[in-house]
Amino acid sequence: MPGMNLPPVQIPVKALEELFDLLRIPSVSSDPGRRGEVLRAAEFLAAKLSSLGFAARVDATAGHPVIFAERSVSSSLPTALIYGHYDVQPEEPLGGWSTPPFEPTVRNGRIYARGATDDKGQLYAHLMAAQALLAVGDLPVNLKFLLEGEEEVGSPSLGDYIAEHREALSSDLIVISDGSRFAEDVPTITSGVRGLCYLEVRVRGARRDLHSGAYGGAAPNPIAALCALLASLKDASGRILIPGFYDGVLDPPESELQSWSQLPIDPASWCASIGIQEPVGEAGYSLLERLWSRPTLDANGIWGGFQGPGSKTVIPASAGAKVSMRLVPGQDWQRIARLASDYLRAHCPAGVQLEVEVLHGAEPVVLPVDSPAVQAARSALARVFGRPAQTVRTGGSIPVVADFQRLLGAPVILLDFGLDIDAPHSPDESFAVADFQRGILCAAEFLRAIAEQR
Amino acid sequence: MPGMNLPPVQIPVKALEELFDLLRIPSVSSDPGRRGEVLRAAEFLAAKLSSLGFAARVDATAGHPVIFAERSVSSSLPTALIYGHYDVQPEEPLGGWSTPPFEPTVRNGRIYARGATDDKGQLYAHLMAAQALLAVGDLPVNLKFLLEGEEEVGSPSLGDYIAEHREALSSDLIVISDGSRFAEDVPTITSGVRGLCYLEVRVRGARRDLHSGAYGGAAPNPIAALCALLASLKDASGRILIPGFYDGVLDPPESELQSWSQLPIDPASWCASIGIQEPVGEAGYSLLERLWSRPTLDANGIWGGFQGPGSKTVIPASAGAKVSMRLVPGQDWQRIARLASDYLRAHCPAGVQLEVEVLHGAEPVVLPVDSPAVQAARSALARVFGRPAQTVRTGGSIPVVADFQRLLGAPVILLDFGLDIDAPHSPDESFAVADFQRGILCAAEFLRAIAEQR
Repeated sequence: MPGMNLPPVQIPVKALEELFDLLRIPSVSSDPGRRGEVLRAAEFLAAKLSSLGFAARVDATAGHPVIFAERSVSSSLPTALIYGHYDVQPEEPLGGWSTPPFEPTVRNGRIYARGATDDKGQLYAHLMAAQALLAVGDLPVNLKFLLEGEEEVGSPSLGDYIAEHREALSSDLIVISDGSRFAEDVPTITSGVRGLCYLEVRVRGARRDLHSGAYGGAAPNPIAALCALLASLKDASGRILIPGFYDGVLDPPESELQSWSQLPIDPASWCASIGIQEPVGEAGYSLLERLWSRPTLDANGIWGGFQGPGSKTVIPASAGAKVSMRLVPGQDWQRIARLASDYLRAHCPAGVQLEVEVLHGAEPVVLPVDSPAVQAARSALARVFGRPAQTVRTGGSIPVVADFQRLLGAPVILLDFGLDIDAPHSPDESFAVADFQRGILCAAEFLRAIAEQR
Repeated sequence: MPGMNLPPVQIPVKALEELFDLLRIPSVSSDPGRRGEVLRAAEFLAAKLSSLGFAARVDATAGHPVIFAERSVSSSLPTALIYGHYDVQPEEPLGGWSTPPFEPTVRNGRIYARGATDDKGQLYAHLMAAQALLAVGDLPVNLKFLLEGEEEVGSPSLGDYIAEHREALSSDLIVISDGSRFAEDVPTITSGVRGLCYLEVRVRGARRDLHSGAYGGAAPNPIAALCALLASLKDASGRILIPGFYDGVLDPPESELQSWSQLPIDPASWCASIGIQEPVGEAGYSLLERLWSRPTLDANGIWGGFQGPGSKTVIPASAGAKVSMRLVPGQDWQRIARLASDYLRAHCPAGVQLEVEVLHGAEPVVLPVDSPAVQAARSALARVFGRPAQTVRTGGSIPVVADFQRLLGAPVILLDFGLDIDAPHSPDESFAVADFQRGILCAAEFLRAIAEQR
């Protein structure tokens, strides 16, 4: 077993306290009014990395800054690059939070705060792992950090940044901890992420809001047009009607489907965990296929007209919606964006103007499951959790995975410390204190295991 | 000509100043937080009526208060009852206002403020008419005022109030000025109002907001379900698909349609006034039929999920919409509410829970066009505008008209001083200063004409 003769790593005493300081910074990347807060989070992390002996810098981009930090130990050792993101989702709807989203609170062993699991808690586990390893010697590998502030808005600057800093970023493997393992007692390596194509759809009718009595019957209604448009995207069975949408979709190999069928998941419990009666979606596909290997289309937001209490007899001048699609291997997000935009334009009801804006996208990725780096990750997980790791996919998207593969050519390892019940992107997002601690130990054991493969 | 030998009435010097004081009170009846402001508007009006020698009182109801005021001159004179409402629509969307909605401002001869035309400006014209008549003698008739604070939320308390105060409210005719005349240079008597049936539709999916990556493909989407539901209500030609919706609809008599065809309305100019290319709606019906004598269905608001700038990959737990229908003679609003609710429940997609709340309703009404009271109104309009009045309908709803007819049995006269371009219910609602002044003169001349019919 690797690392048997090394001194055990200890969780740093102030790990939780420091994470709380980071969680208190409302680094919402999608909100232009919080640009300063995003920068503050970047500077917090760069300062921490400097204090650990890393050469750390905050690099400006067209958007929010990128933190690059490295600590070289020896050219004979392998080099690992840790990727994470310090920006967070907006905290809306505020009413759903039991405690304020930027005042981290521990209840029942869980840290409640926006960004707790996505991704501040998980990335900070890697910083704490470095600190823990340094406390008992030097790092077992050369270590680099690449921390971005635009993941929640589609990483618009990161591709260019990676392309311009290929040499500095060169490494033998790349680790990302920004997702959920399969279940509380099932440590997992994630071998695939879905892609994403995110659109905003806006519909305009009359020049101004109209009285529905004086104008109703002859004036266009942008809400009705928008609803007709969104309803035209899927049939009643959940199949997406955009022509060409499913072209090229690659089903997982039979062996992978077979391994999924062994995973401990019970659709009834899954439904109960989110308070629904039964899963919806495409007939003929298992729950895990619907979540991991089938493409989707969901409205993420809609607005128009009067939303307050009571009634207002208005026909609004405009209405809008956010619509996103999760993509799977064989699909190309820019092609899907074109197909979806064309379809929406072709189906726009008469009397209104349609505007479709592509907000961002990410390619779907499948990763190898048997590389030496994956073996090292399995070993670290097995040691910390006391049971073997399974291989799974995730339904979410990590836009940079495709960029890393394409631009840096190094293998990417998805080592997830979170759980779906952490509720990333939702009110009351949380991260178990135990998972933060296991994350620190896993990250440290993983680097030791990598070093021992040499 | 009536009134030729009476002293001419003069517009009170402080008329505009006083109206501004009333417009400054944000008496938004649908907002529970503004209950005190609604009461303040009521007390303002009661105090003004008292100062004019009326016996005025503010009567509490289950909702906002009703003002009743009367000034008796002689039992040998006829009695007129003026109805108006001192509550206003919400001011949203705030961004659409050129100046704050509760800071009345005159620009280019127009008073800009929430409530300017609907209905504070129009009802205050009647108070000023009484003041003007009193300035040159006594009132020519016995005069009563009934001013309510719940018109914009469907007048839930007024029916009971009228039923309980039949004797006090007894009168020979009832005047309402709460709408728009046909055009700038076309004074009109309104002979019909559409009814209303206003629903709120709420759809619930999972217990909490979900990450669209982790759950997309198998979790129900309330926005999609709501859009499918709303889209199912009408076909592409604008026909409402609720079974039985059109049952019993009475078309206007041929003579009335003939008179409408003589009215100066040009669909191209109508479209240009609201910035659209052409009218939408039911094929086979003229623009005026679509607006006045055909029932409609419009979404007035919709909400769900993320509405901010940028993107958020969420599947929201719920979504909702406001949906209202304008009804015409032959339709009964409570029956329509039942049919619509049944239809929505029958068409609700699987996986979500539906809740339909009936917010309020009003019956459609057609009024006589040739009564003595209407003749008096025609005479007053002709004198003030210098041209004959036309008979029109309105697409809007005035819930109390049906109550007045049913409970008091007196003829109702709709004497509209506003214009559609006043944009009631919209940002930058306004009322022409000239229309406020003409309204004062019309209201005074009308009372004189009524008196002279004895």
